[in-house]
Amino acid sequence: MSFNIPKNNKKRVIVVGGGFGGLNVANELENSGFQVVLIDKNNYHQFLPLIYQVASAGIEPSSISFPFRKIAQKRKDFFFRLCEVRTIVPERNLIQTSIGKAQYDYIVFAAGTISNYFGNQHIENVAIPMKNVSEAMGLRNALLSNLERAVTTADEEEKRELLNIVIVGGGATGVEIAGAISEMKRFILPKDYPEMDSSHLHIYLIEAADRLLSGMSKESSAASLKFLREMGVKVLLNEKVIGYEDHQVLFDNGGKIPTRSFIWVSGVTAVKIGNMPSSAIGRGNRIQVDEYNRVKGFDNVFSIGDQCIQTTDPNYPNGHPQVAQVAIQQAKTLAKNLKNIEANKSLTPFRYKDLGSMATVGRNRAVAEIGKIRMNGWFAWLMWLVVHLRPILGIRNKLVILFDWIWNYITYGYSLRLIIYASKAKEIQERDIREANTHLGEDILK
Amino acid sequence: MSFNIPKNNKKRVIVVGGGFGGLNVANELENSGFQVVLIDKNNYHQFLPLIYQVASAGIEPSSISFPFRKIAQKRKDFFFRLCEVRTIVPERNLIQTSIGKAQYDYIVFAAGTISNYFGNQHIENVAIPMKNVSEAMGLRNALLSNLERAVTTADEEEKRELLNIVIVGGGATGVEIAGAISEMKRFILPKDYPEMDSSHLHIYLIEAADRLLSGMSKESSAASLKFLREMGVKVLLNEKVIGYEDHQVLFDNGGKIPTRSFIWVSGVTAVKIGNMPSSAIGRGNRIQVDEYNRVKGFDNVFSIGDQCIQTTDPNYPNGHPQVAQVAIQQAKTLAKNLKNIEANKSLTPFRYKDLGSMATVGRNRAVAEIGKIRMNGWFAWLMWLVVHLRPILGIRNKLVILFDWIWNYITYGYSLRLIIYASKAKEIQERDIREANTHLGEDILK
Repeated sequence: MSFNIPKNNKKRVIVVGGGFGGLNVANELENSGFQVVLIDKNNYHQFLPLIYQVASAGIEPSSISFPFRKIAQKRKDFFFRLCEVRTIVPERNLIQTSIGKAQYDYIVFAAGTISNYFGNQHIENVAIPMKNVSEAMGLRNALLSNLERAVTTADEEEKRELLNIVIVGGGATGVEIAGAISEMKRFILPKDYPEMDSSHLHIYLIEAADRLLSGMSKESSAASLKFLREMGVKVLLNEKVIGYEDHQVLFDNGGKIPTRSFIWVSGVTAVKIGNMPSSAIGRGNRIQVDEYNRVKGFDNVFSIGDQCIQTTDPNYPNGHPQVAQVAIQQAKTLAKNLKNIEANKSLTPFRYKDLGSMATVGRNRAVAEIGKIRMNGWFAWLMWLVVHLRPILGIRNKLVILFDWIWNYITYGYSLRLIIYASKAKEIQERDIREANTHLGEDILK
Repeated sequence: MSFNIPKNNKKRVIVVGGGFGGLNVANELENSGFQVVLIDKNNYHQFLPLIYQVASAGIEPSSISFPFRKIAQKRKDFFFRLCEVRTIVPERNLIQTSIGKAQYDYIVFAAGTISNYFGNQHIENVAIPMKNVSEAMGLRNALLSNLERAVTTADEEEKRELLNIVIVGGGATGVEIAGAISEMKRFILPKDYPEMDSSHLHIYLIEAADRLLSGMSKESSAASLKFLREMGVKVLLNEKVIGYEDHQVLFDNGGKIPTRSFIWVSGVTAVKIGNMPSSAIGRGNRIQVDEYNRVKGFDNVFSIGDQCIQTTDPNYPNGHPQVAQVAIQQAKTLAKNLKNIEANKSLTPFRYKDLGSMATVGRNRAVAEIGKIRMNGWFAWLMWLVVHLRPILGIRNKLVILFDWIWNYITYGYSLRLIIYASKAKEIQERDIREANTHLGEDILK
C-alpha cells in the first residue's frame, strides 16, 4: 500500500480529518497553488449536528453524509485517501497511515475527538456511544430492537430494563437525543406499538454538574431543563455515573437505574496522533497550538478544531469551545495563512467570532444565544443549520439536500424505523484490511 | 420471552415471513375475523426486486424497506413479532421461536429462501451474498472499499484483484447486478476516481449453464447476453465455479480469475423449519403443498411463495418459478381459502396466471415477457415495478415512494456512495439476544 499520489512542483498540504475544520481547509485551498491530500477514516463528511436525528429515526444517514469524492468531483490537485494516521515523524515531514506513508510540506490535524470514558474500560465496552453517523445508526437499531423485545418479554424486570433509556451527559448531544427520543415516545410509539402503554417508557438524562448545557448561559440551561421536563424527560443533575452492571447504571451515591439502553455522551477526548511530543499535548488530549494554529515546536505542523487547544485568544484564555464554528473559522484563517506563508506575507492571528450557539429540544423548541440575544423556535434553528451547511456544500447541493431533509423532518420520514445492518461483507473487508496491514512494510520509526 | 398476544375468540393465523407472500396474506386477511400474527426476523418488508440498486449505490436501503409496524398502523387484530421460527409441533398447533412459543389455529410458512452454496462451506464463508437489503449494503460497502484500496495499493497483483469483480450466477439477480455495476463503472468512476483508469475495472458474470436467465425464453437470454456484452461485462457461460482460494475464483476446468469481490448469486434453497416431516420436503428444500397450498399431511399448516413447491398446477407440473407474482397470487388465493374454510365453503385450487417476467440490464434496457409478447425499455420496467409495489403499499404511500426513488434513480442519488456501518450497538444487541435465548425456557420438543 502507498499513497500513490504523484509529486508535482506544488507544495503538498495533508489534511487529516474531513470534519468541519478539515473539509473547510481543503475547500479554501482550492486553486491556491497547493496540492491538497485529504485523509479520513470514512469516505464521507458527516454533518454531526444532526446525528441525533439519525439515532431517533428522524432522518436517514445518507441525508447528512456526503462522500468526499462527490464533494471534490472535478477538482484539480485534490486527492482523497481513505485511511487512518498512525504516527508522525516531524523531522522527516512524514506520516505513517494504515495504507502506507506519505510526505508532506504542511500538515493539518483536524481529526476531532472521540468519546471520553474517563478511563473506565468497562463503561467503554458496554455503553452505546453516539459520536458519529455509524454509532447513531447503532443506537437507532438498539432503541428499536429494545422496543420490540419489550413487547414480548414475559419478565417484568427485563421489561423495565428495556423501557428505561438512560442518557449520561447533559451537553448539547445529551439534551438533543433526550428531546428526540421523547418525541419518538409521543408521536411514534402510540402508532407503531398500539399494544404497549407508552407511559411505561422512561427517558433519563443524567448530568454530573448542576446544570445542563454548561457551555451556554444559565438562562439557556434553565430553559432546556424546563423544556425537557415538560416533555417528560427525567433529568437528574449532580449525579455521577460510575459503572454499569447487571443491566443497571450505578451512581457514586449508591443509586441504580435498570436499563438496557445505556447511552454515553458524557464527554470527549481528542484523537491521539502517535509520536506527537507530549509537550505539545494539553487538556483533554488536545494538541496545543499558537495563535496561527501551529503546533508548538514546529513550523509546518498545524491543528484546528476540536482536536486542538489554543489559549492565545484574549477572549478565550482557557481555549475555545469545541464547536463547529471554531473549526470552520480556524480553517479559513489557516488556509489564508498557508497562502501567506508561501507569499512571504505576514500571518493573521486567529480570533474566534462567536456566531452564537444552539441546542434543540425536540422539533419546535430550541435554546439559542447570539451575543446577548436569546432566541428560540424553529426558524432560528433552521437559520443555524443553513449557516453550518453553507460552507460544506456550496450552493448547488444545498437546496436539494435541505429540501430532502426538511421533508423527512416534517413528515417524520415514511419508512425510517428500520433495524438494519450491513451484513457479512464487513467481516470480509476487515479480514482483507488486517491482511493488508500486515504487509505495510517497514515501520517508519525504526 | 413470550409472544404476549391476548387470545380472543378469533382464530389465530400465524404468518411466518413478511415478503411478497406473507405480507399479502396478512393484508388480505384484514377485517376477516382472524387474529393475524406476522413473524419476521427483520422489522421491515424488503422490496427485493430493487436490492441490486442498493448494492450499486443507486438507491437507499430505506427507499425499498418498509417497517411492518408502519404498514400495519391502525390495524386491529394484527400483531407483528420480530423473531425467527425454530420448530413446529403440528400435533399441538405450536411453534417455538427465538422469543418463545406460540399457539396457532392456522399457520402459513412464507419464509422464502436463502443463498444456496450447494454444500460448499468454504464458498459460504468467503463469498459475498446478495439475498436481502443487509447483504446488498454489505456488497456496496465492499465494492466501494475495494475501489478506495485499488487507488492506493502499490502491489500490481493486489490491484488486479481489487479491480476484478466476479459475479457467480447468471439468473435475474446476477444479470441485474452486473448491469448496475457496469453503469457505476461508466458514469460514476470517471467522476469520483479521476486518478484511476476505469478501463482497468473488469466485471465478470459466470454462469454454469449455456445461457443467462434460464427461467426466461431463449430470446430473452440472447438479448440480455448481447446487452451485457455491449456494456463491457465479460460473460462466461458453461463455466462452473468450484472454489475461491488466495483471492482467486477457481473453475472446474482449472481456470482462475483473481478477485477480491467474489459475489455469489448462484441459486437459492428454501428456509428450513425444524421438525417439519421430511416427507413434506421436496426439491430445493421446498415444502411440498397441495393445490390449496396446504402442507402434505396437515389440515391447518400452509406454505406459499418461494418456500413451497406445488406440482398440482397443470401448467407447472414441476412447480412454479420462484418469483414474486407466484407468491402474491398464492397469498390471495390462500387468504380466500382460509375464509372459505371458516365459512364451510368449498376451496379454490391455485392456478398461476403468468403476468410476465422481467430482468433489467442497466438503467434503460430490460428484457420482458408477457405471454408471447417480448418487450423492453424503461417504461415497461416502470410498469412492472408499479404492479409489484401496488399490493404491498396501498395507494397512500406508493406515490411518495415512487417519486423518491425515481428521483434518486434519475439523479444517481446525491450522496449515496457511503461506506457505512451501524456500529458497536450491534454487538451489544447480539450479546443481549444470545443471553435472552439461553433463557428461552423448556424445549417444546421434550
